[in-house]
Amino acid sequence: MAKANCSVFTFLLATFMMFNYCAAYSALEDARIISEYKRYLRTTDHAAVARSLVHKTNWASVGSISTNDKIADYPMVNIISVDDSAVDGTSTGRIHFLLTDLDFTGPDWKHINKVTFLFSDDQTLNCKNHGLDPMEPTCPRTIISGKVKQLDKNDKNYNDWLQAFTVRHPAAKSWIKAHSFYLCELEIENIFVLDFYGGPHNVAVSDYYNAKPN
Amino acid sequence: MAKANCSVFTFLLATFMMFNYCAAYSALEDARIISEYKRYLRTTDHAAVARSLVHKTNWASVGSISTNDKIADYPMVNIISVDDSAVDGTSTGRIHFLLTDLDFTGPDWKHINKVTFLFSDDQTLNCKNHGLDPMEPTCPRTIISGKVKQLDKNDKNYNDWLQAFTVRHPAAKSWIKAHSFYLCELEIENIFVLDFYGGPHNVAVSDYYNAKPN
Repeated sequence: MAKANCSVFTFLLATFMMFNYCAAYSALEDARIISEYKRYLRTTDHAAVARSLVHKTNWASVGSISTNDKIADYPMVNIISVDDSAVDGTSTGRIHFLLTDLDFTGPDWKHINKVTFLFSDDQTLNCKNHGLDPMEPTCPRTIISGKVKQLDKNDKNYNDWLQAFTVRHPAAKSWIKAHSFYLCELEIENIFVLDFYGGPHNVAVSDYYNAKPN
Repeated sequence: MAKANCSVFTFLLATFMMFNYCAAYSALEDARIISEYKRYLRTTDHAAVARSLVHKTNWASVGSISTNDKIADYPMVNIISVDDSAVDGTSTGRIHFLLTDLDFTGPDWKHINKVTFLFSDDQTLNCKNHGLDPMEPTCPRTIISGKVKQLDKNDKNYNDWLQAFTVRHPAAKSWIKAHSFYLCELEIENIFVLDFYGGPHNVAVSDYYNAKPN
């Protein structure tokens, strides 16, 4: 994927949005918020922000195009437990999750394989605990879109992935026993990060995987 | 909207899903989780569960159909601050939020006015603090779909709605000053509640508004 940060269009858009956001949130007038923000978010590396959020949050709000009769073609949003850990617990950035076709997300991705994962720092109450409204740009979030890939049980790493997942989500040991759940990975196509005033940043997928979480 | 709980199809589906979920999660074997669940969720009234989640969470994960060039037609999921309070702070169930067309959700709903709001009890860490995985059916969630309605500034209640919102979200006082934000309400069309094993419940909109949060 091209690094959109380099494009003139994105630069102009960011500048435009920065102006508007600054006006919108009266950002620079609020020294307390800036100070709080700098204290707990110790990076301006947007790829690292995305990696940190993915690693520290335990779940994502997952959007799909609904196949449910009640809301066909509407966006569905479901809560999905996630994990990006290697078997030793370190972050890999690879977003793993268990789905079942008995839930909403399973049938949806099999019909239209376009999904988006939202990770917000307020899922750990980090924003609330620092006096930041969850919708303020200074409450970091990343919005990661792509396709669901069902992982091959014969892959030599499959058992490690599953073990890492159940360390993080012990309840999943019961889910797996039922055989209706299958382990998946998000094939990432697009990453937005919003972690300060100035509008969202588009992070290249390679930068995301090369970054280290804080 | 018809009460889907009354339909034979829904009954059969719920029975089928109950059987599968019970197997999937080994639910009834785990006395601790059941006990914890009953202790902190003091109702089996699914409409009341939805009202409680809407009132106590401070934000929703909002799905829309994306108009962003990077992920056109993908589901977008954004974090949106919400409030359902009357001016005295009591719950009304009416979901109010401020949008700006400088963010993702604003342009999306104006293009295709179909949105879904996810509210999970883990947003307050209530599930985590009771040892419940966020994806377990016993971690209550409600998924509410509908259309965005931009509220009329000349409505006699407008200032009360705005005041109630800023009591809950003081940062919004700055947003409003910028004039790019507009107050909206979700016109609810469909409500799913998942608060125990047995699959999701479809709650009638009238039952939701008539219920009282716990």
